[in-house]
Amino acid sequence: MNIRAIAFDADDTLWDNEPFFLDVEKEMCKILSPFGTAEEISTQLFDTEMANMPDYGYGAMAFTLSLVENAVKVSHGKVPATDIARIIELGRTLLRLKATPLEGVEETLRQLKADGRYRLAVFTKGELLTQEHKLQRSGLLPYFDNILIVSDKTAQQYVDLCRTLNVAPSELMMVGNSLKSDVLPALNMGAWAVHIPYHVMWQHEVIDDFDHSRMFRIEKISELLNLLKMNDEPLLLA
Amino acid sequence: MNIRAIAFDADDTLWDNEPFFLDVEKEMCKILSPFGTAEEISTQLFDTEMANMPDYGYGAMAFTLSLVENAVKVSHGKVPATDIARIIELGRTLLRLKATPLEGVEETLRQLKADGRYRLAVFTKGELLTQEHKLQRSGLLPYFDNILIVSDKTAQQYVDLCRTLNVAPSELMMVGNSLKSDVLPALNMGAWAVHIPYHVMWQHEVIDDFDHSRMFRIEKISELLNLLKMNDEPLLLA
Repeated sequence: MNIRAIAFDADDTLWDNEPFFLDVEKEMCKILSPFGTAEEISTQLFDTEMANMPDYGYGAMAFTLSLVENAVKVSHGKVPATDIARIIELGRTLLRLKATPLEGVEETLRQLKADGRYRLAVFTKGELLTQEHKLQRSGLLPYFDNILIVSDKTAQQYVDLCRTLNVAPSELMMVGNSLKSDVLPALNMGAWAVHIPYHVMWQHEVIDDFDHSRMFRIEKISELLNLLKMNDEPLLLA
Repeated sequence: MNIRAIAFDADDTLWDNEPFFLDVEKEMCKILSPFGTAEEISTQLFDTEMANMPDYGYGAMAFTLSLVENAVKVSHGKVPATDIARIIELGRTLLRLKATPLEGVEETLRQLKADGRYRLAVFTKGELLTQEHKLQRSGLLPYFDNILIVSDKTAQQYVDLCRTLNVAPSELMMVGNSLKSDVLPALNMGAWAVHIPYHVMWQHEVIDDFDHSRMFRIEKISELLNLLKMNDEPLLLA
C-alpha cells in the first residue's frame, strides 16, 4: 500500500445531500396530492428523471426540471402554474444547501493535510456551479489540493483524475458513499477504495454489495486515519 | 510575441449558439402572447435571468428554469401547465444543438494542430454536460489538448487556465466573441486576445468596445493563421 492521493466524494460523504432531495420530493408530492398518491408521483418522478438523464445529467437543476415536467405529467396538464412556481422554489433550496461538514470530516481532513504525505482532492459529479457553491459554503476548500467536478464518474474520468493528481491508480484512494460511483470504478482501475455507507441512497445509485481486497468499509470518516497507518511511513529523511 | 497555447471560446466562436436561444425566446413569447407583448415578456425574462444568475449560473438548463419561472410570473399564475411543458421542451432543444463548426473553424484547427507548436484548448463557461455534449457533437474534440468548462470566466479561472496549460499568461492567446468574457480578462492577466465578433450577442455580455496593444480583431477564424505568422518561428533544431 503506497497511497499518495486521496479523493473524496462530496455529497453524502463530506456533507448531507440526499435527505434534502427527499424532503423536496416529499413536499412536491404534497403539492400534487390532488393528482395522485405520493407513491405514484414518486415512481413517475424516477421514470422522468431516468428519461432526462441523457440530456440533464446529475444535479439539482436537472432534478428541478424533472420535478416540473413530472408535475405537468401526473396532473395531466392540470397543475396550476402557482404550484409550478412553488416547485421551482423547492428546487432552489437544493442550490442553497449549507453543506455543513458531517461529523469528523473537518478534523480528519485537517489531520491528513497536516500529515503532508497526501494530495487531497474532491471528486464529485453533478452541476458545476451547484457543487462549487456547496464546497465554498462547507468551508472545506482550504484542505484540498484539487477540486474535480465531473458530469459523471465514468472510468475515463477516473483515468483523468489520476492524471490530474499525478499518481498511478495504485497510489489513489477513493473515499465515498456510493459503491456504484465511488468504489467500483476506482477498484476497476486498480485504485484503493473506502466505502462509508450513508443512511439513505438514491435508488439510481444502489447496486449489490460486494467485497474486494483493495476495498475497506468504515462507519465514520475518522477511521480513515487508522486505516492509513497501514500506508508507508513518512520519508523522514527525504 | 511567443504564443505557446491558444484557448478558444466555444459558443458563438466555434459554433452557433445564441441564435438558438433567441429562437426559443421568440417561441416562448408566442406561447405567452395572451399575457403580454413579446417585448414585455422578454424584458421580464432578462430580469428573471439576472435574478437567478447567482443560483443557476450560465447555461441552457438555467435558461429553461428561468423561462418557466418567468412564464408563471408574466401570466400572474394563469399559464396552463401544458404550455409549461411546451416551454420545457423548447429548452431541451438547446441541450441537443448539433454544434456544427462555423465556417473555417475545422480547417483552422487542423492547421494549428499540424503546426505542432501550440497547445490547443477549449475554454468555455456554462453547464458541464451541455458543453461536453456540444463538443462531442461538433466533432472538434480531436483537435484539442485540453477542455476546460467553468461556471464563469473569472480572473481566477484564467489563472487556472494558464496553470493547466502550463504556460505563462504572455504565452497564452485567448480567442472568442465576447469582449467581456474572452478578451478583457485575458488582457488583464497579461495574455493576448483575439476578438472575433459574432452577429448577435446576449445583452448580459455586451460591453463598450475598446482597443489594446495585445488585442487583435479578426472577421473570420481563418485569419488567426496569418496573425500567428508574427509568432516565433518553430524551433527546427529542438
